[in-house]
Amino acid sequence: MSASLAGRKIVVIGLGLIGGSLARALRAAEPAAKIHAMDRSTPVLEQARADGTLDEWSHDPGSTCRDADLIVLATPVLSIEGQLRELAPFLAPNTVITDVASVKGAIVEAAQRVFGRLPPRFIPGHPIAGSEQSGYGAARSDLYRGRKVILTPQSDSDPQAVAVVRALWALVGAEVLTMDVVHHDQVLAATSHLPHLLAFALVDTLSQQGTREEIFRYAAGGFRDFTRIASSDPVMWRDICVSNAEAIIGILEEYQRELTRLRDLLLARDGGALLELFGRANQSREIFLAFNRGQPAKPSE
Amino acid sequence: MSASLAGRKIVVIGLGLIGGSLARALRAAEPAAKIHAMDRSTPVLEQARADGTLDEWSHDPGSTCRDADLIVLATPVLSIEGQLRELAPFLAPNTVITDVASVKGAIVEAAQRVFGRLPPRFIPGHPIAGSEQSGYGAARSDLYRGRKVILTPQSDSDPQAVAVVRALWALVGAEVLTMDVVHHDQVLAATSHLPHLLAFALVDTLSQQGTREEIFRYAAGGFRDFTRIASSDPVMWRDICVSNAEAIIGILEEYQRELTRLRDLLLARDGGALLELFGRANQSREIFLAFNRGQPAKPSE
Repeated sequence: MSASLAGRKIVVIGLGLIGGSLARALRAAEPAAKIHAMDRSTPVLEQARADGTLDEWSHDPGSTCRDADLIVLATPVLSIEGQLRELAPFLAPNTVITDVASVKGAIVEAAQRVFGRLPPRFIPGHPIAGSEQSGYGAARSDLYRGRKVILTPQSDSDPQAVAVVRALWALVGAEVLTMDVVHHDQVLAATSHLPHLLAFALVDTLSQQGTREEIFRYAAGGFRDFTRIASSDPVMWRDICVSNAEAIIGILEEYQRELTRLRDLLLARDGGALLELFGRANQSREIFLAFNRGQPAKPSE
Repeated sequence: MSASLAGRKIVVIGLGLIGGSLARALRAAEPAAKIHAMDRSTPVLEQARADGTLDEWSHDPGSTCRDADLIVLATPVLSIEGQLRELAPFLAPNTVITDVASVKGAIVEAAQRVFGRLPPRFIPGHPIAGSEQSGYGAARSDLYRGRKVILTPQSDSDPQAVAVVRALWALVGAEVLTMDVVHHDQVLAATSHLPHLLAFALVDTLSQQGTREEIFRYAAGGFRDFTRIASSDPVMWRDICVSNAEAIIGILEEYQRELTRLRDLLLARDGGALLELFGRANQSREIFLAFNRGQPAKPSE
């Protein structure tokens, strides 16, 4: 299979926000691709065929995957091992596999348990894009435009398979980068997994206050933005947390130490040190904004 | 002074985002009001007169406040006591005073130290509006439209003065409510002060990682929204934290206990309990959104 996807059979497994947006983006960018999908929800599959996104769908991994050129796994992290076991008997030697999970170590380990090693044509991937919305109904063909996609190939990965997965993401407008698996999981723990946990925890803490209704009534836009990501899919985040627990615990504990320092400054009414900390955070956020200048200001994970 | 502001002299002290937006909104809503201002920055005052917002400005509290009908204190919390001491000798018996601080207990105490008690015509107030931007350059005449303003009058407050302050905020499109001082400070600690602290702490924690540049490079929209409020004015937030430390420490400690529970669930890889917590937070945020349906989705504190 060349890196062109025209005429190729692409199977998307899991038509949620991420898989559904990829299917829609592929349909828009490469009308000649043959886009197939599997999903546990028949109505979702029917809808995606009716709106022109899919050529075909099925609940049968055998018929769907036997002649696939590219399979994209887009179900929650913890379901990937089971998916791979179902597909394994039907994989042709030249089929390329990739996934979209926000955790990469757990995906490599799942593949190792199923195949004995990460197959050279299985190229783990992670589009840094998303939304607090979920499901095919929220899928958008422009979700990946201008976004980063991180691939984590291994030293024995098939370069041709890497080229196919690169072509897939380039086709839908993303910028493709590669990274080491462990490093990916640490960077994402800090930039995505921890902020999601903190938002879930804040909403949960406030909802347990006796004055919950009043608190929600007087919370305004800052709170809304701050907690937007707490509306994200609980199953997806349960899977991410369990799969990347070690890296998340590491950065969470650093954050807890910072909160303890902050509490001590409050107890001491130490205005000077608080001002210094807030000023430092202010400047750091300016650096973050400078790094990301020009990126679309869309919700994403 | 009747509740109408036409022809009345209104003095805004502090032409930052909050005071500047109020002056601009007043100018737009009541062209016949006489709007005066004091600010330590002469260029800002000149700019506000040049753009038509102000009728006059001065650095002299005597000439500015002697014949004021309404004085609005719009400088950071910790500067209010000094402002009141400067103004006190020049206050006419019928002048109404209000403020815009995010903390109300500290304002009442400052007034008690200066006047021996909260003067019956000093009606503390707090518009729940703002932005991570600051300064007169960010001021907008529509900042208060559709927003809530909480007044905290006391039992001996002058009803006519309360009516004047209500009229002020109604004129610029806000919804005016009243609340007990202590309760206000607790509700705001939970809904605004804590989220700001958490955002400052997150940006600060990540900026101390050795891989800071990479972390910022891969952080996307979710992180941007989550930390937007960490770009807020450090002096304002230092003052708020010092002035409302007790209430903030209370809710911060509850949040810290929640994070410790969360860390224990991660350590135990307890997917069931994590799913339950995320689902609960999901539902609570839906309740929050339902409470706030129809409010403009603008940044605010």
